Order: sequence, then C-alpha cells, then structure tokens
Amino acid sequence: MESFSRIPSHIGIIPDGNRRWAQEKGYQKKDGYQHGITPGFQLYEILLQYGIKEATFYGFTKDNNKRAKDQREAFTNACVDAVELLSGRDANLLVIGNTNYPAFPEALKQYANHRVHFGRGLININFLVNYDWEWDLKSLMENKCLASHEISRIDLIIRWGGRHRLSGFLPAQSVYADLYIIDDYWPDFKTSHFLDALRWYQDCDVTLGG
Amino acid sequence: MESFSRIPSHIGIIPDGNRRWAQEKGYQKKDGYQHGITPGFQLYEILLQYGIKEATFYGFTKDNNKRAKDQREAFTNACVDAVELLSGRDANLLVIGNTNYPAFPEALKQYANHRVHFGRGLININFLVNYDWEWDLKSLMENKCLASHEISRIDLIIRWGGRHRLSGFLPAQSVYADLYIIDDYWPDFKTSHFLDALRWYQDCDVTLGG
Repeated sequence: MESFSRIPSHIGIIPDGNRRWAQEKGYQKKDGYQHGITPGFQLYEILLQYGIKEATFYGFTKDNNKRAKDQREAFTNACVDAVELLSGRDANLLVIGNTNYPAFPEALKQYANHRVHFGRGLININFLVNYDWEWDLKSLMENKCLASHEISRIDLIIRWGGRHRLSGFLPAQSVYADLYIIDDYWPDFKTSHFLDALRWYQDCDVTLGG
Repeated sequence: MESFSRIPSHIGIIPDGNRRWAQEKGYQKKDGYQHGITPGFQLYEILLQYGIKEATFYGFTKDNNKRAKDQREAFTNACVDAVELLSGRDANLLVIGNTNYPAFPEALKQYANHRVHFGRGLININFLVNYDWEWDLKSLMENKCLASHEISRIDLIIRWGGRHRLSGFLPAQSVYADLYIIDDYWPDFKTSHFLDALRWYQDCDVTLGG
C-alpha cells in the first residue's frame, strides 16, 4: 500500500463515460451503466483500505432524466442494484435526491434523506439519486437548509470520462474541492486512477479560499 | 483573428497567482495585485474582439480577508483602481459582494448590486468584490433569490495559477461550466492563454447535465 502525506477526508466521485464506453465496445448506450457497478465496488474496497471517511457517488440527476427511456431504466436499475449490493457491506449509506418524482426509484425510498447503517459501518457513502442541484439549493428557501445538509464539505472530486466540469454535483459542498480528471471511461476503472488522484491531491495546498 | 466554431456567452475569470508571481520576482506578496490590473484590460479588449457578451472577474472574497493587512489593502486598492479604469471604457458593470462589512470598499458602493452603464456598453462585466459564496446562497433564505441572481449561467471558467478548483466562485452559476486551467500566474497573462481556452472549449460538448 502506497503512503500519502495527506489523504482527503471526503471524496466526490463522478463516474462518467458509461455510454461512450458502451458505444466504443459496440454495445447499446444503455448497456454501459450495468458495467459501472463492479468498478464502484472495486473503488469501495480501496476507499476502505486508505481509510477514507466519506465518499459521495454521483448516481443520476434530474437532468439525466432527459435521456431516452431505455437509458433511464438502465441507470435507475444500476443504482438500485448498487445499493442492494452495498447493503451487504460495511457502510453508512445516505441517499440524497428528490423523492417527489416518479423518476426516484421506489426501492430506494427506504434509504432516502437519512443515513442507514450496514454491517460494521466503516465508511459514510452518500449516493445522489434523482439529484437536482436546484432542488438542493431551493431547500434553503423552504427548509432553511440544503436538502443535502447532511453531506459534509468535499476535499477532492475525481471525475472519469474526461469532462472538466461539475455537472451540478453538490454545488455548496464542492466550493473548495480540488478537481481531478481521468480521461478513461468509468467502466475502465483501474486502481491506478485513484492512486494517481491521491498522489496529485497530496501536493495541492489547502487554503479554503483564504 | 482566429475563428471558433463555438464561443462561450459568459466566461468566468479566476485571476490567481498574483502573490506567487510577486514572490518569484523578488517582490513582496502584496505587490502582485497591482500587476494584475493591466492583464485585466488586455483581456477586456480581447473579450470585445471576440464578441463575448458577459464576463465575471473574481476580485476578492470574504475568505481572502483572512490574509495579512498589507495584502488586504493591496487587493482592495487594485479592485478600486480596476473599476475606475473600467468606468472610462464601454462596459455595463455589476459589482456583486457583501457591502455590510468594512472590507467592502467605500468607493465601490455606488456600483454594488445593480448594473451601471459605461460608454457604449459593449459587454456585461461582473466583478466579485468581498464576495462570499455562503452569503450568496443564504440570500435564498431571506430574499428568495441568490444575491448574485443578476449574473447568468457561466459556460467557461478560466483559472490562472494552476489550481484545479472553484474556491467559492459563484457556485450556482458554475454548475455546468467547463473549467480550463492555466498554470502561468495571472500577471503573466498572454493572449495565447485565452485563445488556448477558446480552442479547447469549442470541442467540449454541451449537455447541461443531460
């Protein structure tokens, strides 16, 4: 195990590029999502190894619901499958998303907007499901707090698939986060991606805007 | 003039690295800020040339006020000087920041939180002065809108000085922005930095999270 001078407490994960991966393999776009589950659990094991306390995974967003029906079904099923698998592991799960729309999967309502403990609870895993940044911020108007207020500040965001943007990922928690981009698509996840990100992060200074 | 297949409507500018530039030149940290004004006006001219409709410049933030007094005075003076120079040009200026603290410069109160028209008004320039992302978002609670609600969605953010983060820059307007990092420090601004960013941006896809 490699050692680092500084480890992020909370890592954001944007697992992008599932559809591009599928197309390059000659599959249908929708088929990419199911191939994103195994990488998620490979990464989960590495997060535990390195003692990361909290990780937030970008599942799907309100914006993603503009996609074709077969893709919507595929990414929704992949999110449900991921949570079912996680329930057999050692994590404290918090699903954050707008449950007031049919796009929010029925099977995940039991985990929504409060933290649920699985096994030995070795890590806090947040999962954004039917997440909508506007809904999150507008909760400040109605409830005087973010809808995602239980999610802490993020230190490092790792994005797969080459795009250099947040795409609406937790705008309030991401304000001071360092953004590390991996050009490979998420289904091609490798341990070295994560270690490259940690190696880069340990040399970033921390100023919290100061 | 180079031509691009796609030009961003609204560009965010994070002119970082003034202090590191000063130190490398053997100056005091505070001396970097005054060297950031000329690059700003070089960029202003290029923005006009390329027909950019709106640009937001990161002046200073509440977080920056944690710095030493001589630096605080230097960045505040640089912001005031920049606005005085801009008042002789052709821009519609909107200064956004929290005016309820002494850190907000008296001389800029006349431009704060409403747009002021200079000359032929060829571009909208937003300038964040004593800006505080928490203050901006918390305005949703008290006023049912962002403090920065007059600032539109940002397409491209260009950051000088090598850091890969937003540092609290307009979290709501930046959600879909592509982030382009330039390792050179802001006082070393070159036209080619900006053209490199536009060249990169024209090949980014636009999905607005979809």
